[in-house]
Amino acid sequence: MIRGSTELVAIIGSPIAQVKSPANFNTWFEQNGQELAMVAIDMAESGLAAFIDALRGWRNLRGCVVTVPYKQVLAERLDGLSPRAAALRSVNVIRREADGRLLGDNVDGEGFLKAARAHGFQPAEKRALVVGSGGVGAAIAYALCESGVRQLVIADLDKPRAEALAKLLRAAFPQLNIGNQYANLSVFDLVVNATPVGMGGSGELPLAGQLLETLNPSALVADVVTNPVITPFLEIARELGCRIQTGPEMARAQMGNLGHFMGVMPLDV
Amino acid sequence: MIRGSTELVAIIGSPIAQVKSPANFNTWFEQNGQELAMVAIDMAESGLAAFIDALRGWRNLRGCVVTVPYKQVLAERLDGLSPRAAALRSVNVIRREADGRLLGDNVDGEGFLKAARAHGFQPAEKRALVVGSGGVGAAIAYALCESGVRQLVIADLDKPRAEALAKLLRAAFPQLNIGNQYANLSVFDLVVNATPVGMGGSGELPLAGQLLETLNPSALVADVVTNPVITPFLEIARELGCRIQTGPEMARAQMGNLGHFMGVMPLDV
Repeated sequence: MIRGSTELVAIIGSPIAQVKSPANFNTWFEQNGQELAMVAIDMAESGLAAFIDALRGWRNLRGCVVTVPYKQVLAERLDGLSPRAAALRSVNVIRREADGRLLGDNVDGEGFLKAARAHGFQPAEKRALVVGSGGVGAAIAYALCESGVRQLVIADLDKPRAEALAKLLRAAFPQLNIGNQYANLSVFDLVVNATPVGMGGSGELPLAGQLLETLNPSALVADVVTNPVITPFLEIARELGCRIQTGPEMARAQMGNLGHFMGVMPLDV
Repeated sequence: MIRGSTELVAIIGSPIAQVKSPANFNTWFEQNGQELAMVAIDMAESGLAAFIDALRGWRNLRGCVVTVPYKQVLAERLDGLSPRAAALRSVNVIRREADGRLLGDNVDGEGFLKAARAHGFQPAEKRALVVGSGGVGAAIAYALCESGVRQLVIADLDKPRAEALAKLLRAAFPQLNIGNQYANLSVFDLVVNATPVGMGGSGELPLAGQLLETLNPSALVADVVTNPVITPFLEIARELGCRIQTGPEMARAQMGNLGHFMGVMPLDV
């Protein structure tokens, strides 16, 4: 139970009621006897600039997880960014320093990879397809490049956005093969849906059903969608014999990264 | 445990670790099956203006209790004040309307009277001495005037502040006898320490020990200090046979007033 002396971390986004981080963090804090709590803040866009200024003076708040739709806009307002957050122009976590300075990082990609490694996937020299070049897709793509994949393909119905991400990644990782073209899925060791398609039981697929038939059964197939846990996309992959990785697995895997950056948790929890 | 869907109220002040409201509110929320939590916010003065602007956009926050030292400064920044908060230029609670407007009230006095009534004290036609003309003293004095005391005396080492409060109250309640002069304590039905004197086990008294000997044994003697619960002032009063009222009793009594104003509790809890 929260008392006057309880230190805080927050998660900010809008809407916010659906987020799982408060339950995950608070369970961990309680089980580990920490006098800390996470609160979920549903902030209107009109309050964001003031919220960031208030954070600088909020002495018993250690940090803030950032979720949709504020990962990009808040990256522009902090006092310092990690190299990857600066490259992605996107943060999913903020740490408040004792002097009030706010530092940002983006551990979406690291969390994704931590979950993938738990499934036995080692990214070095692999071929990966990331579907979706928005915030989370960009973070996953960046982490794959950092980890030395041989080939990265970015697919998005929004072609200019996909090409902009590919360009950014080619500049940061000039030795890698980064493109937007692919004939079928059979060459890929990893296929990730980083779009919201399939969310909320819509039944939709992020790639054409016919294309999914070309998935290599040795591939790891992952989804960032958290609800339903097993999306139609993952269902098909599982039927084809692929290993699958769910959205909640990625969310759970990055809890330690988020907590560690805020200074309230070890990296591996 | 706080989840993404938990609605919030806050208490803001600095320092904040010592406040009892979060434990009191959160116990009540839990016992009454409310998906609500109170968090304590230790805000630097430099962050106050931004905090108020952020509150306007904070969609899952119902309101905020205000404690020392921000009751006066925040009263200047809200979108509307109750008549008593406007007269006192001091708020101890803020409600966030659905449209983001922030309304303030000050229920310190009402909470004090609720506790006093529980001790059988009926203010109408009584004589009261309030020691201390700061925020909480002013709120108690105002509530006593509203309740129709016959005579109110305000004592403060800071004479100009005491006179300023007396002037404000005479303007608002022209029919009452409001002054700063008294010979001894024997005429008073109520004597209140509304200063911090006695806090933290200092052993100090808000009135001279010799003067305290003149307390009327039929009087109610009250303290706003919460730690220790029984201050040296209350100890002497008890020994003289007076009924006593502690700081925690006042704090507990006004919980319903605070919660009701924020729309999260019935008035009488």
